[in-house]
Amino acid sequence: MPTNYRNFRNSVPWLILALEVVFIILFFFFFSVDGASKAQMSYPAFQDVNHMVIFGLGFFLMFLRRYGFSSTGFNLLIIALGVQCSVLMEDLFVFILQKEYEGGLRRIGKATVSVTAVVISTGAVLGKTNPLQLILMTVVEIIVFHVSRWMNNIFLQIPENISMMHVHLFGAYFGLAVSSRFSEPPPRSEKNTSTPKSDLLSMLGTLFLWVFWPSFNSVLAANNKSKAIYNTYFALAVSAVTAFLLSVLTTKDGKFRMAHIHSAVLAGGVTVGYTAHVIEYPWIAMILGLLASVITILGSYCLQRCLYPALKIHDTSGVHFTFGLPAVLGALAQVVFLVI
Amino acid sequence: MPTNYRNFRNSVPWLILALEVVFIILFFFFFSVDGASKAQMSYPAFQDVNHMVIFGLGFFLMFLRRYGFSSTGFNLLIIALGVQCSVLMEDLFVFILQKEYEGGLRRIGKATVSVTAVVISTGAVLGKTNPLQLILMTVVEIIVFHVSRWMNNIFLQIPENISMMHVHLFGAYFGLAVSSRFSEPPPRSEKNTSTPKSDLLSMLGTLFLWVFWPSFNSVLAANNKSKAIYNTYFALAVSAVTAFLLSVLTTKDGKFRMAHIHSAVLAGGVTVGYTAHVIEYPWIAMILGLLASVITILGSYCLQRCLYPALKIHDTSGVHFTFGLPAVLGALAQVVFLVI
Amino acid sequence: MPTNYRNFRNSVPWLILALEVVFIILFFFFFSVDGASKAQMSYPAFQDVNHMVIFGLGFFLMFLRRYGFSSTGFNLLIIALGVQCSVLMEDLFVFILQKEYEGGLRRIGKATVSVTAVVISTGAVLGKTNPLQLILMTVVEIIVFHVSRWMNNIFLQIPENISMMHVHLFGAYFGLAVSSRFSEPPPRSEKNTSTPKSDLLSMLGTLFLWVFWPSFNSVLAANNKSKAIYNTYFALAVSAVTAFLLSVLTTKDGKFRMAHIHSAVLAGGVTVGYTAHVIEYPWIAMILGLLASVITILGSYCLQRCLYPALKIHDTSGVHFTFGLPAVLGALAQVVFLVI
Repeated sequence: MPTNYRNFRNSVPWLILALEVVFIILFFFFFSVDGASKAQMSYPAFQDVNHMVIFGLGFFLMFLRRYGFSSTGFNLLIIALGVQCSVLMEDLFVFILQKEYEGGLRRIGKATVSVTAVVISTGAVLGKTNPLQLILMTVVEIIVFHVSRWMNNIFLQIPENISMMHVHLFGAYFGLAVSSRFSEPPPRSEKNTSTPKSDLLSMLGTLFLWVFWPSFNSVLAANNKSKAIYNTYFALAVSAVTAFLLSVLTTKDGKFRMAHIHSAVLAGGVTVGYTAHVIEYPWIAMILGLLASVITILGSYCLQRCLYPALKIHDTSGVHFTFGLPAVLGALAQVVFLVI
Repeated sequence: MPTNYRNFRNSVPWLILALEVVFIILFFFFFSVDGASKAQMSYPAFQDVNHMVIFGLGFFLMFLRRYGFSSTGFNLLIIALGVQCSVLMEDLFVFILQKEYEGGLRRIGKATVSVTAVVISTGAVLGKTNPLQLILMTVVEIIVFHVSRWMNNIFLQIPENISMMHVHLFGAYFGLAVSSRFSEPPPRSEKNTSTPKSDLLSMLGTLFLWVFWPSFNSVLAANNKSKAIYNTYFALAVSAVTAFLLSVLTTKDGKFRMAHIHSAVLAGGVTVGYTAHVIEYPWIAMILGLLASVITILGSYCLQRCLYPALKIHDTSGVHFTFGLPAVLGALAQVVFLVI
Repeated sequence: MPTNYRNFRNSVPWLILALEVVFIILFFFFFSVDGASKAQMSYPAFQDVNHMVIFGLGFFLMFLRRYGFSSTGFNLLIIALGVQCSVLMEDLFVFILQKEYEGGLRRIGKATVSVTAVVISTGAVLGKTNPLQLILMTVVEIIVFHVSRWMNNIFLQIPENISMMHVHLFGAYFGLAVSSRFSEPPPRSEKNTSTPKSDLLSMLGTLFLWVFWPSFNSVLAANNKSKAIYNTYFALAVSAVTAFLLSVLTTKDGKFRMAHIHSAVLAGGVTVGYTAHVIEYPWIAMILGLLASVITILGSYCLQRCLYPALKIHDTSGVHFTFGLPAVLGALAQVVFLVI
């Protein structure tokens, strides 16, 4: 459809330009300089999160042959837009509720964590949307995520560092919901295949995320940072071991399968996100990591066969198993901890 | 020319050996241990700069098919030689002016920042020089850069963190000057083409630089480090958005062009280098980032068509647009700020 | 042998499961929460070491065509198992000797440094062992390494940060010893070749290690951290320069050889590992770096021709030159320093 295509060609740059001009104007009015700055974030912590979102998630989602450049390059555009939008939403919230402004670096750090939700959602719709739709999705999702965090904060009294950890849950299910509105690409088309090179880059992204996940879980923890770090580390370690173990068990030829490892090594980190700073003994985190990995691999096995065709869901990068299910397990674990 | 080639083969190792022996002897006489150490640099800050120069610039310049290994491997040789040379020049300066010695880590950090000028110049002459010429260029450029910094410091009273930010400007124009002395390679030769793989690695380098640029701009700032970081971050974010926007507008098929994005996403970071620690409101940094990106892409469009064939300049990696023009804009912005 | 293969297929997952269950049970009984925590490790320092082991060594050993995934993915499994095993051994030691527990992060950091020995050994047996053997080797090597460290500590009164630096020496010779028990693969088989892509990834790993080596050498130093960092940096810089120099001299066509640079640029860092925090002047570190690089390249030249065929040793990744010989030189240098 050349007419549609020309329309698209014409509208993308103007949409981006309009958004950017609106952002600069809003920054002019709303963004105040470093205020009381009682809650700061150290630069290395911010850098770790930034590094992780740009590289880790950028490569993690790069496993489709035709989306190598699209994933890394476009990821940067989405993050650059999303962070500005998120900083503005945060400032708007502070402005409305007449709270104190936090330090500039911490505000960007929180915005970067929020943008993770968008990047995860992108994984679910990869190969089905055009740039225009992705940019609109970014802005809408950031706004909805912030509104949901405000409601959590005001009505349910959930502290900020916990409500922020809902990014995985929110991102995965928002992505699935958007994905269900698009038609599924033909199953054996070129768009759906991966190559050894893209697999390798995707493995690289997985390793990046694995290394930086303790930073992600500890960056917003007010206290017990050290505990959050080592619990996350042990949960990730057990997840990685379990992923290899289950990968050998569930494949017929007894070899490790990239796809299983790709999705299950991180499950432990997602699961302990809510509780890492309160878990008393590492063995609890280790058992959570083991359960998370099991749920991810069995979930990917069962859901893809039974549930998805019935519901007509198509989840390109498997964000449902990788981020959705472990986050649900984590939320359950948090409830159990609160009851105890 | 087999005779020339044999001469070259014979002279490269002896030149390197001679340089290294001279460096060790000079270190024996000049390099003093940690002195008063009033100005220190934290290890993570040093590590970020080191990481950025070795990886970011190493990959950033790796987009020509035949220079993958040459760029990363040779980059390491140039940096290793350049840092030693730069530390010695710095110590010589301190020795002559009878100043106080700074901490060891800070001296290496400053040397690494200085070497950036050499790496940028290398980008302009890539594919036209042999290793012998590159090594000589490294030593000469480091000496000239330090002399220019001394003159800035003594006669113009420019503080050190500003004079250090001239690396981009100095590196780009030194590289262009050297490049104009070499004959241009035939336009369609194999040496001038890029492959999807090399493009991808180059994109990787760009992302690295994008993530680490706030470290680079804040590493030497004496105070207002946090301000330097977030202003640089916002300038980079707007640059990235503008780069995508202009890339779609200026290409005929309405697709993102790697080359544009490659050069323009970093323009904002280069431009705010001089002023990041004094800009009061982020919207100023954002507008600078937008202007920098526009200048880079329009500059690359016009200059390559009109000016270069006339002046017989050939700029392999486009360092003139990527580093030269935004640095000129940044210098102008600094003058405007000083006047206000 | 299909029966053997089925046996293998059956036993790998159960071995991993058994190990993981034993680890969790032991963690339940032995791992105590943060104790007196007099000796802490900063998170960025831990992160650097973690980053280096997962990425640097993962890619460094990835130069065989068929082992790209095997090296990075399997590396993660070995590290995840090894770190848990190593933390338990460390805690057992503290429990037996009734010492004070250190901070949680420092314990994981030390375990990560210990696991380096296993990863280095893996390099020597790459392509000759199956996953079952590698996992068993990991557990056995970690136990033997810890026992050797205890003996060093109790009987020879070697302080912890020095005994920890034996990882390179121990890893290289343990790997060679294990390697000599396996038959050498046929010399021109596909398993032994490298491709340009794997060479490039291996170069990437080398650069990673080069950048992070100062962190590795300084992470356990109780005092003089800054001295350890800059001495290591200068030793590495001179090593890199010497590696390029010798590579040109020893090859017939006067070109840089990837394999030489790969193994020799890091030699300086390995050598000064024992002494980086006590070397008074950087020129001493620089001369050590130069000697280390010379020994590595000449060693690889002579040993591979003369000694190996006689002793029937086959060292896939050249860990003997890269880590073994420089570590021996470093140990000698340490003795000389102690005598002086």
